[in-house]
Amino acid sequence: MSEPLNFAQVAENLRKADDILLLCHKNPDGDTTGSASALCHALKSIGKNCAVLCPDAIPEKYHYLQLPLFEKNFTPQYIVSVDVASTQLLGSLVDSAAKQIHLCIDHHPSNSGFADMMLLKTDAAATAEIVYDLLVAMDIPLTNHIADCLYTGLATDTGCFKFSNTTAHTHIVCAKLMEAGADIKRLNHLLFESKTKSQLALERIALENLSFHFEQQCALICITQEQLLQANAQLSDIDSITGIPRAIEGVKAGITIRQMPNGYYKISVRTVCGIDASQICKGLGGGGHKQAAGCEILGSMESAKQAILSEVQKALCTES
Amino acid sequence: MSEPLNFAQVAENLRKADDILLLCHKNPDGDTTGSASALCHALKSIGKNCAVLCPDAIPEKYHYLQLPLFEKNFTPQYIVSVDVASTQLLGSLVDSAAKQIHLCIDHHPSNSGFADMMLLKTDAAATAEIVYDLLVAMDIPLTNHIADCLYTGLATDTGCFKFSNTTAHTHIVCAKLMEAGADIKRLNHLLFESKTKSQLALERIALENLSFHFEQQCALICITQEQLLQANAQLSDIDSITGIPRAIEGVKAGITIRQMPNGYYKISVRTVCGIDASQICKGLGGGGHKQAAGCEILGSMESAKQAILSEVQKALCTES
Repeated sequence: MSEPLNFAQVAENLRKADDILLLCHKNPDGDTTGSASALCHALKSIGKNCAVLCPDAIPEKYHYLQLPLFEKNFTPQYIVSVDVASTQLLGSLVDSAAKQIHLCIDHHPSNSGFADMMLLKTDAAATAEIVYDLLVAMDIPLTNHIADCLYTGLATDTGCFKFSNTTAHTHIVCAKLMEAGADIKRLNHLLFESKTKSQLALERIALENLSFHFEQQCALICITQEQLLQANAQLSDIDSITGIPRAIEGVKAGITIRQMPNGYYKISVRTVCGIDASQICKGLGGGGHKQAAGCEILGSMESAKQAILSEVQKALCTES
Repeated sequence: MSEPLNFAQVAENLRKADDILLLCHKNPDGDTTGSASALCHALKSIGKNCAVLCPDAIPEKYHYLQLPLFEKNFTPQYIVSVDVASTQLLGSLVDSAAKQIHLCIDHHPSNSGFADMMLLKTDAAATAEIVYDLLVAMDIPLTNHIADCLYTGLATDTGCFKFSNTTAHTHIVCAKLMEAGADIKRLNHLLFESKTKSQLALERIALENLSFHFEQQCALICITQEQLLQANAQLSDIDSITGIPRAIEGVKAGITIRQMPNGYYKISVRTVCGIDASQICKGLGGGGHKQAAGCEILGSMESAKQAILSEVQKALCTES
């Protein structure tokens, strides 16, 4: 298991280190990319060699974060994973960059403790919230751009301060980021108010393919590859529909299953308080947070549907 | 015009007053009801006779605010309008309670200055933000319930901190409300995550009835009474679809027109930065904020559509 460190210790370690490589998780979201970009720009601002490596391409939506991507311009001496709960989430990097990770900065309660040392704050709504506190501990001034990057992580991981992980501290950090120049008008439009025509088409398909189970306590959306093509949807577009089923009155578990090109079925589980999404997904080899988790199953749409519904049923029966 | 007061002066006036009647605006939303309920409970907590009067019924969604509604248990001596931009918005109260309004607490830049005195803060995201600062100035402690009421106003008027009116101060106030016990988990689920089956049906109808205009810079949804009946929708359900058209990539003005039972067509206009929604609606006798405004037109769906599209076209041509 990793050695837990406090902010002052991590600050000291980073001050001593150089040639620092930051790792993002696969299927990169706003928190892993925003946090890594903010930390990278901050470390560069105090004269460090630093770059970010991500197992997958950075979605176009997040290009404004201007991640300083690793281009073999140095030999990494100190490797830090950012918002990564387990080595499995490092995807294609597992056997290379990930063989020794010096420090892990994360907020997932399910963190497997794979790194030598760990800055794990499970009460933080986003890893970006931890990175903000770390930059304060390191006395690194926030530029507009660093504030934009951290806001991206904070806002995306909280559904723009809507999810139950949001705390008073999250709002205070957000106020500080705005005072440091975060352009929330532009960012919120980009992240939350902006829908591509393909997302819109996908939402329409989702609403037409919604089914209810277990006395309407569970709502489920199945999306096939054919429907994704029909909507001209990017894989990342699916994020905009995973919130739909749980949002329905009376629904305790909202499930979205999407067929992947590789034969897998990616399942996203969103639950209300009292139903543990992470527990539901654990039974199928996945994990995540209490109210938002995921897993992947090989097989058919029908078998994926039966497998996840069976786990949901167990959870509904033992509702706390 | 009203005499502008600062927080200390308003605090002093309210401390001296008794038998205070608070007025909400018609078609009550989360800010007018949340702010009035918070202020009413706060004034009662320091021994004042106080009640709230609203020209329309309080939507069921906001019943948890437990507004102490006026029941002729006292003769009002001091009348305060809360979140009301003009006397027209007092609806059926215009000729009775509204004949003399001592104080107006509001954040709308379009406020017509109808009250004797005014606490107008146009940089506040919500009237609830002003009421929070007022309660601090009056040194009235926030109960859990008052915090819940103020959070309701703050969160609904900012689209849960997503709209461009949100400031660093808004987030700081929110942190204070959470520290005072606002149950944001429950409230966010109720206000933002919870969709009735009729809302869902209405969204599906909206997506199927979306049209684009002016090189896709304007997206428009028309909803007839028949469609509202078909979805079994409440009038308040429409709020959940007015954000859809503007959210589409490339759209600068998002319009929703709904047929009302009284022959009027209610038009909601949402715009991106650079296009003034309030200006668009002003041309048709309405008003509101820069990025969100509304108006009502008598006639047919087709004439309402042509009238608003003509105003939108003017705005697109003179885009700043």
